[in-house]
Amino acid sequence: MTKKRISILGSTGSIGTQALEIISRVPGEFKVAALSAKANLRLLAEQVKKFQPGLVSVPTGQSARELRKKIPGSVKIVSGEDGLNQASSLKEVDLVLMALAGSAGLNPLLQAIEAGKNIALANKEPMVMAGEIITRGARKRGVRIIPVDSEHSAIFQLLQGKKKREISRIILSASGGPFRNLSRSRMAEVSVEEALRHPTWKMGKKISVDSATLMNKALELMEARWLFDLKPDQLEVIIHPQSIVHSLVETRDGALFAHLSVPDMRIPIAYALFFPDRPELDFPRLDLAQIRELKFEKPDLNRFPAIKLGFQALKVGGTLPAVMNAADEEAVSAFLFGKIGFNKIVELIAKVMSQHQPGESKSLKEILEADVWARKRAGELINA
Amino acid sequence: MTKKRISILGSTGSIGTQALEIISRVPGEFKVAALSAKANLRLLAEQVKKFQPGLVSVPTGQSARELRKKIPGSVKIVSGEDGLNQASSLKEVDLVLMALAGSAGLNPLLQAIEAGKNIALANKEPMVMAGEIITRGARKRGVRIIPVDSEHSAIFQLLQGKKKREISRIILSASGGPFRNLSRSRMAEVSVEEALRHPTWKMGKKISVDSATLMNKALELMEARWLFDLKPDQLEVIIHPQSIVHSLVETRDGALFAHLSVPDMRIPIAYALFFPDRPELDFPRLDLAQIRELKFEKPDLNRFPAIKLGFQALKVGGTLPAVMNAADEEAVSAFLFGKIGFNKIVELIAKVMSQHQPGESKSLKEILEADVWARKRAGELINA
Repeated sequence: MTKKRISILGSTGSIGTQALEIISRVPGEFKVAALSAKANLRLLAEQVKKFQPGLVSVPTGQSARELRKKIPGSVKIVSGEDGLNQASSLKEVDLVLMALAGSAGLNPLLQAIEAGKNIALANKEPMVMAGEIITRGARKRGVRIIPVDSEHSAIFQLLQGKKKREISRIILSASGGPFRNLSRSRMAEVSVEEALRHPTWKMGKKISVDSATLMNKALELMEARWLFDLKPDQLEVIIHPQSIVHSLVETRDGALFAHLSVPDMRIPIAYALFFPDRPELDFPRLDLAQIRELKFEKPDLNRFPAIKLGFQALKVGGTLPAVMNAADEEAVSAFLFGKIGFNKIVELIAKVMSQHQPGESKSLKEILEADVWARKRAGELINA
Repeated sequence: MTKKRISILGSTGSIGTQALEIISRVPGEFKVAALSAKANLRLLAEQVKKFQPGLVSVPTGQSARELRKKIPGSVKIVSGEDGLNQASSLKEVDLVLMALAGSAGLNPLLQAIEAGKNIALANKEPMVMAGEIITRGARKRGVRIIPVDSEHSAIFQLLQGKKKREISRIILSASGGPFRNLSRSRMAEVSVEEALRHPTWKMGKKISVDSATLMNKALELMEARWLFDLKPDQLEVIIHPQSIVHSLVETRDGALFAHLSVPDMRIPIAYALFFPDRPELDFPRLDLAQIRELKFEKPDLNRFPAIKLGFQALKVGGTLPAVMNAADEEAVSAFLFGKIGFNKIVELIAKVMSQHQPGESKSLKEILEADVWARKRAGELINA
């Protein structure tokens, strides 16, 4: 059997490290062809020694020189945007795991698609910004995009063996985050540390804050719309604090299909890596009799207006989702730096969205202009 | 589009009437070619007038003469075992809905398979008795057996799009029946009326009593084993009193897939009738946020020893499942006639099973001999 050759963009992050952990459990299945990381050069050097990729990508010439001292001379080091694009379109690669954070993943994703690589997509923001362009390109190149997000992986898996016309609704699970039961006034005072402490999932900073505001679910609605080619009114959100039911698919006869597992990101990561095969993994099994109850509730749109913004972006489309995404990145960053309070994150995004005149999103230029405008406007509001 | 031509055996029962209700909602989809019923000739005559089958089967010459007076002369009436076999193997029929009760369905089922008809199977007892012979015959003739039981329909649907080697476990849901929280001593005193009052499903008498003792789940374990070609240790039972999660399938990566719907038998019936298409039906949709909690518990094998018998039959195989099934039919009948108490049903089945020397179940002769022996032994114990 030939090994599946893989490029991992964002290899030192939460998804990247877990992917490498899985790969190290199944010797003979994968060949790591390229790695990329932003800041953690020490860990990156360890990964290079262990997995021996031919190419490594880092953000700057300075970091390239630092890394050079830590790893064998046989490994090629590239840097900057061009380096990232090389790592994502490497000739011998079969699958690119896109595990970058935020909008930084957009260009490398488009490069990988252009090069005809299958994608394991952990980085939802590019899909929110430019879902139309990405999915159009993927269709044209015959590229498969396999989602890594637990919710979208669940939906992707639930759709296997079903015809598109049979699907009536998709219901995205949301844990509700760490502040599910907090009043808005209490939420106004939460600290960065509290916002980063997710009750069921261990994740990176940006996505942890997005999960606390539920902006993550707003982004996921857009991601699902493009990944699964759905109409806005086919999407719903349900709060399920246990993060066991990862999402549901309803068929036109009234049946509902659910995907459940222990909350462990390695399960959807492994699924995406092995697709179209399903790996045999000795991860802990769910015991429903021991869990006793699976709980569900309606999202509270007053305490979590992010969901409303998500549905608005979904309905309006065009450049509005890119604006929502850009404003969110700026607002989360400002929150993490202590510049704005927790409730201000979504208030700010809402304000930026309300001031935007949505245009078409058929070209990257239109999208990037909207992105730049939104960041500028968000910055002004943060500093005001 | 040509209509799917269907023969319904047991058309006046719970499954049969619901199937005809579905068929009457979708004019142009089905042509009812044959009907059969046992006792309710008045309803059968109504069905004949409405659906105009070419052939009708009744149990005796006497009932044939009675029916003759009620329906047009153009409809052919047949009777007895031979009549039932004609209805199940009619040349122009595409699909036979097997909705007879108990072991009476075995011969017509084998005839239908022999004639190469696809089967919608609501009648589980033949599968318990002679699963090996039935599935071997179906494979040989290229016949599809689509289960109608809500649990097995759920599993059948969940297995679509999955490879056999990916499946690790099947978990059958059980409502726990009307006596889920009753002590054994209280159960000893329950009346026939109480036993027939199922909390979530409206069904025929035999299956209602089987659901109260949980013998229904014991039979379903055997049915699942043959329908899905599983090893005994791949099967489990979970108590889910709400009858919303109809069953679950676990894959080898630790994911669990569930099929949910409002408890309405028309959903699995329609699925089996329309397969491989999934019908568009305006049945009520599940609202999990309104349901709030899905509850699960371990089956209590001390209060419900039927489950233990099911696993024993599963493990030992051979003629033991046929013996379990025959003893159950006799015991339920004795209970309905007021001859034995509720707890005696399973005690009696256990006794008959323990006295049986299981043999092979490769031929119908071996199975029918075991069946006859078990009924005789059960009768002796009932009358003792």
